Amino acid sequence: MTRSHAENAELALLLEVAGTPKPGNVDRHRDHDDLRFEHFLAGAVGARDGLAAAADGAPVGAAFERAVAGMSEQDGGNTQFGCLLLLVPLVRAAATGSLTRDGVREVCETTTIADATGFYRAFEHVDVAVDDPPEGMAELDARRGADAVPAVEARGLTLYDVMARSEDDGNAAEWTSGFPRTFREAARIRDDEGPVPDRAAQAFLRLLAEEPDGFVRTTAGADAAREATARAQACLDGEIDPEALADEFVERGINPGTTADITCAALYVALERGVLV
Amino acid sequence: MTRSHAENAELALLLEVAGTPKPGNVDRHRDHDDLRFEHFLAGAVGARDGLAAAADGAPVGAAFERAVAGMSEQDGGNTQFGCLLLLVPLVRAAATGSLTRDGVREVCETTTIADATGFYRAFEHVDVAVDDPPEGMAELDARRGADAVPAVEARGLTLYDVMARSEDDGNAAEWTSGFPRTFREAARIRDDEGPVPDRAAQAFLRLLAEEPDGFVRTTAGADAAREATARAQACLDGEIDPEALADEFVERGINPGTTADITCAALYVALERGVLV
Repeated sequence: MTRSHAENAELALLLEVAGTPKPGNVDRHRDHDDLRFEHFLAGAVGARDGLAAAADGAPVGAAFERAVAGMSEQDGGNTQFGCLLLLVPLVRAAATGSLTRDGVREVCETTTIADATGFYRAFEHVDVAVDDPPEGMAELDARRGADAVPAVEARGLTLYDVMARSEDDGNAAEWTSGFPRTFREAARIRDDEGPVPDRAAQAFLRLLAEEPDGFVRTTAGADAAREATARAQACLDGEIDPEALADEFVERGINPGTTADITCAALYVALERGVLV
Repeated sequence: MTRSHAENAELALLLEVAGTPKPGNVDRHRDHDDLRFEHFLAGAVGARDGLAAAADGAPVGAAFERAVAGMSEQDGGNTQFGCLLLLVPLVRAAATGSLTRDGVREVCETTTIADATGFYRAFEHVDVAVDDPPEGMAELDARRGADAVPAVEARGLTLYDVMARSEDDGNAAEWTSGFPRTFREAARIRDDEGPVPDRAAQAFLRLLAEEPDGFVRTTAGADAAREATARAQACLDGEIDPEALADEFVERGINPGTTADITCAALYVALERGVLV
């Protein structure tokens, strides 16, 4: 008996939030004011059926919407929308026996217009912080939710097309390029030693040091995003204490959420590739 | 959309381990040497399908064995065997629309010989600390696992009968008396205020103060069990700091596991009765 793909994906959601310190995130030792650890536990539990649907062959957009609807059944608001956006195609790829960069690229590139409408409908379930849409894209603003569906259909956009038009978003960049950061970090997690939540915290710091976080840029500005990346590198270099940075970032509301999403996706790939808990 | 019975039961497992301080248990802030927080996360994820089977009408013994098999798919050993022994009949009662003391009593009293064999087979999946069997019961020692099945069948024992013969065990006492402590504590959890993991920690202290813990008695002796109960009461009375007691009990290996099981069961009932996360 081994864990199913959906079980591994749910466990990745739980291990991600259990990893500590992950500066700025809710983690095993830190809550935000209105977004607490238990909201992530309930979000992971609620997401499971949508993840199982993805493994069972449901279309990516429908499985994603179902996972988000289940995740949203808690009082904290958006806990794991971005994680699920990455996990669903990865689970689909794993279920077809191709959890590789080429395998997940194939899943993403073959998404349909119906998948795009599922993605937009998912925004009905929860408030998600996203950037303003680019010039000429206002009617495709994800925050419009289901109201954007007619425009999506009129333009004939697939979910892949929608992601390709969101190039500044870190999750969308993974989606349209075969998840390079996810697979690279999964390999590092496998190579690491020690308890998996500790490896998750290290993965988070490495990812944050590697690239400014999209969610921090959206919610706190580009300077804050660059600063967070520089200070994550300083943690890796042993120049500052990540525990102190975690306290400070929570205090200031600097929340590298996109980095957490990719950490979760990397944990999922690492679990599928044999990392034991 | 609301959580299913199996989702509530899995969430109860997660909220139980997230509650802190729960003196002597693994909790959000404490690990044991070889039994860590992430083992409980993986145990909860793995138990879900067995809990869903219970909700879908599978026999209690088969659903329990499946839940334990899934729970055991992690490297920490026995994380939630006792929790599942309580959750499975509660989930079954909830699925039939009767999550009451009478409803769960009916579920337990109508268990069969096949349910008893499922219970014994569950011991094949994980090492569980149990007392030596009473005089004349050696061939029914639960630690014999599937080897005890012929004796169970020869004596025509149902799972209820097996529990009735384990009267010193706190979980068995719940099983054979309509879960009085579980339902009483669920009502207190509902009446409490604040985040649910904090309520879980309070529930644990109340339950431990109320009655010596069976698992502590088995693993550390009757004196240690009485001492743990007295000190839990002192925590409730504000005479000692539960955080300090938690550190001390982990250090000394005093682990009130039966009390944690009933805390989990009470959380489940509280979630089913509308406590929000």
